[in-house]
Amino acid sequence: MSRSDARPTLVELANSFQRVRKYSLDLVSPLSEEDMQLQSMPDASPSKWHLAHTSWAFETFILKPYFPNYQDFDPSFEYLFNSYYNAVGEQFSRLKRGLLSRPNLATVLNYRLHVNEHMQTLLNKENDENHSLINLVQLMTNHEQQHQELLLTDVKHALFINPAYPAYQKAKQPNYHPHPMTWTSIESGIHHIGHANETFYFDNEGPKHKVYVEEFELANRLVTCGEYIEFIENGGYQESSFWLSEAWYQLKEKNTLAPLYWVKKEDKWFHYTLSGLIPVDLNAPVTHTNYFEANAYAASINKRLPTEHEWEVAARIVTKQLREASPTQAPNGCLGSGLQQMFGELWQWTSSSYNAYPGFKISEGATGEYNGKFMVNQYVLRGGSFVTPKGHIRPSYRNFFYPGASWQFSGIRLAANA
Amino acid sequence: MSRSDARPTLVELANSFQRVRKYSLDLVSPLSEEDMQLQSMPDASPSKWHLAHTSWAFETFILKPYFPNYQDFDPSFEYLFNSYYNAVGEQFSRLKRGLLSRPNLATVLNYRLHVNEHMQTLLNKENDENHSLINLVQLMTNHEQQHQELLLTDVKHALFINPAYPAYQKAKQPNYHPHPMTWTSIESGIHHIGHANETFYFDNEGPKHKVYVEEFELANRLVTCGEYIEFIENGGYQESSFWLSEAWYQLKEKNTLAPLYWVKKEDKWFHYTLSGLIPVDLNAPVTHTNYFEANAYAASINKRLPTEHEWEVAARIVTKQLREASPTQAPNGCLGSGLQQMFGELWQWTSSSYNAYPGFKISEGATGEYNGKFMVNQYVLRGGSFVTPKGHIRPSYRNFFYPGASWQFSGIRLAANA
Amino acid sequence: MSRSDARPTLVELANSFQRVRKYSLDLVSPLSEEDMQLQSMPDASPSKWHLAHTSWAFETFILKPYFPNYQDFDPSFEYLFNSYYNAVGEQFSRLKRGLLSRPNLATVLNYRLHVNEHMQTLLNKENDENHSLINLVQLMTNHEQQHQELLLTDVKHALFINPAYPAYQKAKQPNYHPHPMTWTSIESGIHHIGHANETFYFDNEGPKHKVYVEEFELANRLVTCGEYIEFIENGGYQESSFWLSEAWYQLKEKNTLAPLYWVKKEDKWFHYTLSGLIPVDLNAPVTHTNYFEANAYAASINKRLPTEHEWEVAARIVTKQLREASPTQAPNGCLGSGLQQMFGELWQWTSSSYNAYPGFKISEGATGEYNGKFMVNQYVLRGGSFVTPKGHIRPSYRNFFYPGASWQFSGIRLAANA
Amino acid sequence: MSRSDARPTLVELANSFQRVRKYSLDLVSPLSEEDMQLQSMPDASPSKWHLAHTSWAFETFILKPYFPNYQDFDPSFEYLFNSYYNAVGEQFSRLKRGLLSRPNLATVLNYRLHVNEHMQTLLNKENDENHSLINLVQLMTNHEQQHQELLLTDVKHALFINPAYPAYQKAKQPNYHPHPMTWTSIESGIHHIGHANETFYFDNEGPKHKVYVEEFELANRLVTCGEYIEFIENGGYQESSFWLSEAWYQLKEKNTLAPLYWVKKEDKWFHYTLSGLIPVDLNAPVTHTNYFEANAYAASINKRLPTEHEWEVAARIVTKQLREASPTQAPNGCLGSGLQQMFGELWQWTSSSYNAYPGFKISEGATGEYNGKFMVNQYVLRGGSFVTPKGHIRPSYRNFFYPGASWQFSGIRLAANA
Repeated sequence: MSRSDARPTLVELANSFQRVRKYSLDLVSPLSEEDMQLQSMPDASPSKWHLAHTSWAFETFILKPYFPNYQDFDPSFEYLFNSYYNAVGEQFSRLKRGLLSRPNLATVLNYRLHVNEHMQTLLNKENDENHSLINLVQLMTNHEQQHQELLLTDVKHALFINPAYPAYQKAKQPNYHPHPMTWTSIESGIHHIGHANETFYFDNEGPKHKVYVEEFELANRLVTCGEYIEFIENGGYQESSFWLSEAWYQLKEKNTLAPLYWVKKEDKWFHYTLSGLIPVDLNAPVTHTNYFEANAYAASINKRLPTEHEWEVAARIVTKQLREASPTQAPNGCLGSGLQQMFGELWQWTSSSYNAYPGFKISEGATGEYNGKFMVNQYVLRGGSFVTPKGHIRPSYRNFFYPGASWQFSGIRLAANA
Repeated sequence: MSRSDARPTLVELANSFQRVRKYSLDLVSPLSEEDMQLQSMPDASPSKWHLAHTSWAFETFILKPYFPNYQDFDPSFEYLFNSYYNAVGEQFSRLKRGLLSRPNLATVLNYRLHVNEHMQTLLNKENDENHSLINLVQLMTNHEQQHQELLLTDVKHALFINPAYPAYQKAKQPNYHPHPMTWTSIESGIHHIGHANETFYFDNEGPKHKVYVEEFELANRLVTCGEYIEFIENGGYQESSFWLSEAWYQLKEKNTLAPLYWVKKEDKWFHYTLSGLIPVDLNAPVTHTNYFEANAYAASINKRLPTEHEWEVAARIVTKQLREASPTQAPNGCLGSGLQQMFGELWQWTSSSYNAYPGFKISEGATGEYNGKFMVNQYVLRGGSFVTPKGHIRPSYRNFFYPGASWQFSGIRLAANA
Repeated sequence: MSRSDARPTLVELANSFQRVRKYSLDLVSPLSEEDMQLQSMPDASPSKWHLAHTSWAFETFILKPYFPNYQDFDPSFEYLFNSYYNAVGEQFSRLKRGLLSRPNLATVLNYRLHVNEHMQTLLNKENDENHSLINLVQLMTNHEQQHQELLLTDVKHALFINPAYPAYQKAKQPNYHPHPMTWTSIESGIHHIGHANETFYFDNEGPKHKVYVEEFELANRLVTCGEYIEFIENGGYQESSFWLSEAWYQLKEKNTLAPLYWVKKEDKWFHYTLSGLIPVDLNAPVTHTNYFEANAYAASINKRLPTEHEWEVAARIVTKQLREASPTQAPNGCLGSGLQQMFGELWQWTSSSYNAYPGFKISEGATGEYNGKFMVNQYVLRGGSFVTPKGHIRPSYRNFFYPGASWQFSGIRLAANA
Repeated sequence: MSRSDARPTLVELANSFQRVRKYSLDLVSPLSEEDMQLQSMPDASPSKWHLAHTSWAFETFILKPYFPNYQDFDPSFEYLFNSYYNAVGEQFSRLKRGLLSRPNLATVLNYRLHVNEHMQTLLNKENDENHSLINLVQLMTNHEQQHQELLLTDVKHALFINPAYPAYQKAKQPNYHPHPMTWTSIESGIHHIGHANETFYFDNEGPKHKVYVEEFELANRLVTCGEYIEFIENGGYQESSFWLSEAWYQLKEKNTLAPLYWVKKEDKWFHYTLSGLIPVDLNAPVTHTNYFEANAYAASINKRLPTEHEWEVAARIVTKQLREASPTQAPNGCLGSGLQQMFGELWQWTSSSYNAYPGFKISEGATGEYNGKFMVNQYVLRGGSFVTPKGHIRPSYRNFFYPGASWQFSGIRLAANA
């Protein structure tokens, strides 16, 4: 659930709805029907499923309650494309989403059209005072954008299984230049945390509240691949003292030696990207490190990860430096002065467990299942990656994953005690 | 590997090659690209994979060694489509065949064309004295036919996952009539077991050898769904004394209450078929019972399963009653006198563990991996089902599966001590 | 690792060392050799192992570095009784501690004597200026006390496996009286968190630091068994909206219907205690609820768990109400006014993930593995239970377990937003 | 269940009962209470459990039905010490036998006394015409002997977990001398299989029946450790063509490089025996090879394992060469001419799946669960090992284990086609 204090007009909403819905189709244009069928692990979903589930969300939470006499496109979809909303009903097994060859892609595309048409009709005839509708349309549009990002991370994971390492699309890689790591000091004091202005935000970004933050230092940029290779080659994956106990146990179990998507060929490191397998750029920020790796890297050089409070406090200081990030292309590698790569480069692990802010209340109804029920054992990431929708890039946005998850575009920003 | 004492001519071979290759394409014609991508369990493979792997077999075992200067269609396929031949090299993970969206279907179909053209060229220019080539072409043609049967069992399993229970194809169901179970007595004595004439056979069907079989009785027909429902409804799945210890343990673990593909709706039994979900026909033979269920059913009425020797001895007596069976349509349900439903109705579990016949020797080279290395912990089935290629229906043919396997078209023929 | 600003004298230390060492033997006096061999799950250890491991800790961290020419009791013990200190070396598999019948109990008791004698000798001849030694002796004495508590929780778990539900010891149950739940309001403001005086504390209790806490309310007492039965019988375990997503999934998987150790007999609830199976006392605080259950219970009545900061702020207010708690006997059930049952009754789950305090630094060497490396995916419990050593009961003490862990004496204290 | 055509008198029975019961106690005399508590894997049981379960068998199958007004020693034992007899009732979890510290050893020994006294009373007052009683006493006495053998194999497995490799007892190792492998040819023909005289036998050894066996050759002795080391060092564990497919998969999964209990130290092979860790004797027969290893070794030198029919036919020829074997001491290593080491040296894997003989019928009642329900996926071993009770060493005795089982004293006898 989300809250928005300055609601858009229906005309604005209808425009953003169309834009977002169309962009999902743009994202799958490089994919075949067969590609869109793939589910490579329980955490990931087929592209076709993402297209259907996002439509299901508009149908379930908006069309069914608000569109008079709405006829479902197909009654079985209520069950098939429900992700995890127990209040809506039982769900088709998450582990078997890749086994739904029917409905086929053509049917799912028709489902999208059906939903789009009814949504347009609804938005055209409603008035701007229907706040609950407006809130839901905003939420579901933002929800579809979250799935656009997931679609890319999931496709990357699925195509990587293929020993041909096929590219999702050819794209020019940004050019990164060497840049020394320096430290910005931030003074202790009481700060406000949480969504601060009147635009849309997710429920987990609020309520806005006060925290006391001790003085700390934050690195000006993300850790680079070159620095991370040094960690690997100095035996970082073999030195237990750098690792959390649980991480060390998993490392030994799985014999992990490098981040996900890294491949060593004839003594050179390559990594698999949405543009295929390419040599690792030493100046690029290291990505697909999970929480355990980020933590271990920090420990190896006597630093630590920032808390989400620290990160947000720093982020508010640098929001003016916000750079543009296009969803599937890494940002330009030139770094200026001050805190860099805070937004739209890579998600940055914080040391904060994902939990409710003081005063947080789960909303009534199914949309209450949106965020609150995941608040255990996950860690907060901040900042957004180059595949994050631009509209989701803000200081208060809280992403969250399990500490062992590696398939997101996640990187490492270091902090230090003052 | 196989042996054939009366070799066909190259012209005959080329004809059967074409027929078989075309039939694989006929079988996938009701399927979409998405359907053909599905792998619903490690034991099953995607239809697309079956199409590619059978081509790989011709390419690997015939074109590469026999076609001068043969150029692979794609060198990566040696690894991708090798099923389990260690002598050929490493194999792509069996568990992940459903994750190969590339090569796409169009490429696999081109691969088939490429192989077909080179095979035709080879068969046209070779002469009938090249026995090793002829043997291999026969073997690989029969191999493709085995995969045609697997393709259908695997597709059935994959589509069943879908809660819509989609039909592979609409087909008229045969009409079964009630028919009492009677018993044929077969005298004790020494019998010959194993392939007996000069046509093609698989290596595991030989060598022909003598066995002593005690007097026994064999049921005239397969156990029906009606009889099996009685077993279920009399508490057969709750009575431990009917079940092998290992079976009982699995039953409790998985809470099994009926055969695979059976669904109870409002107190009526339905089962999923290649034509979708239909009511169970009480007179039809029960199918998809695994070895454990076949055994338990027999125990529940103080009967037993036949050994494979007993079955083969009886089968030789009735070969003249052989009926035609079309691959994907169940045979006509009218039963006459004598032993019925021995061939081409359902595979029949025997109590015999799959093992080598006396004097059996594994062939040299990769084709030696065809049968021998699976001779442990599997049980022999005889007779062929309605989806078995007609040419594979013979008294000596030995099919084999793990005792817990249910996704084959397997039924129950009872035997009794004299 | 730990810090202590007001160090005890060696004489004081030697006394507490003796007392603690003796008390471990008192705790195993109701147990047979066979009982002391049991390991009922990977998280628990045999009593014999606890006796040996605590001796190993004195030997490894104190005798070997500080006792001139110290001879190990048995060189193989370095490996056998190392729990998880990678800096010391490899460890015998945690999962197989219950399979070490040798050394037998008599040998382990001799090992204890050997360590005790050398420790006494060492403490007698050292002087009070050897701060590092004093710190280590304090730490290892406190470490043994932690294992005394674990020994009891582990024995309870092991004996519960036995269908006879044997009692560890017969003991009088406290008598609990009904007591209404009321709420104490605590104002917002900046508070100090962390160990505040000069006595011994564990490293994870510091550094002392400031936090800003919003206004909140805390319940005067723990949730009772009667209240929890109401939750159960109103369908609490069947209502997904009360549960975290991960909890709900596990609940369905394991078909959990009540807390660990609860047994329903002829419609009445019993629970297994260290004194055997007894009827549930409706006025007693509910125990062996894990984090998921504590959370769900709170959600079911629109309350929440306190954060560890909130708990500590409240605890400092009530430290004057501290009651005595004897290790293996539940405290008297009479409740007065104000915040009750804060200390020495049951550990109280907080909503705080176990993490480092600002400025926390892992110590050098093996004792640095004491706390820091477990700071992921665990949740903090506060207050201590009736089997917690009295000396460990203080406002700053942080216990931590995985959210699914139930075998500790853990209960539920509710909080609410102001 | 078993049959015996020449029944012993009650006096004879009472004597053998006493002897066998006492021998179980002799076997545990080198063990401590703690040793007797160990269960190192689900397939193995604690020694204390073996002592209790064998008493349970006499109590359940004989005292309860035959001793007038028999009072159970403890009613809870019916459940606790039932191994797998569903007809008797539910069973305490097999996986948790090692977690029963209560009843303690003293109680179990009292249980044995109680059962012994009642059995003596019963045998004294019954008459020799009570055939069903006599049959049951014979069966249960033989059953206890089977558990004596299991007790030793299970103790060996449990003590091996201990890195100190403790010896069960010190014993002189037999001295083996080099002896060339030669081959005995046995002609084809009809042979009788199954128990042939009037002494006691287990139900699975009958009915006696005819089989036709083709001409074959059998090795004069078992494969030696020296020969097996050659197999290992020539890369036998790395050559897939020697291994059954299922075996190869497990080998890679577990990274197996040698038989169970083999340990390489500084380039020399040792193996763990009941007398502790000792250097491998190159002339001793290799033991603890499972079916997969036996099969692979045979394949590596173009031989095979015998069928159980072949083995029994050969065994009948050499029964006159029967050597004495004492239960816990390996037999003298001198080999003469003819077929050697057929009996009482090591169990010999046959290629025969464990199945019912023609005409086999499961007995009525709980004793019908003795053998028949295990007839799937196991392989027959013949001959008996040096820890097999002498009375169980006969040509018709059929032992059976899963092909991956290694903890029995099993060796390799080779066969070859004529």
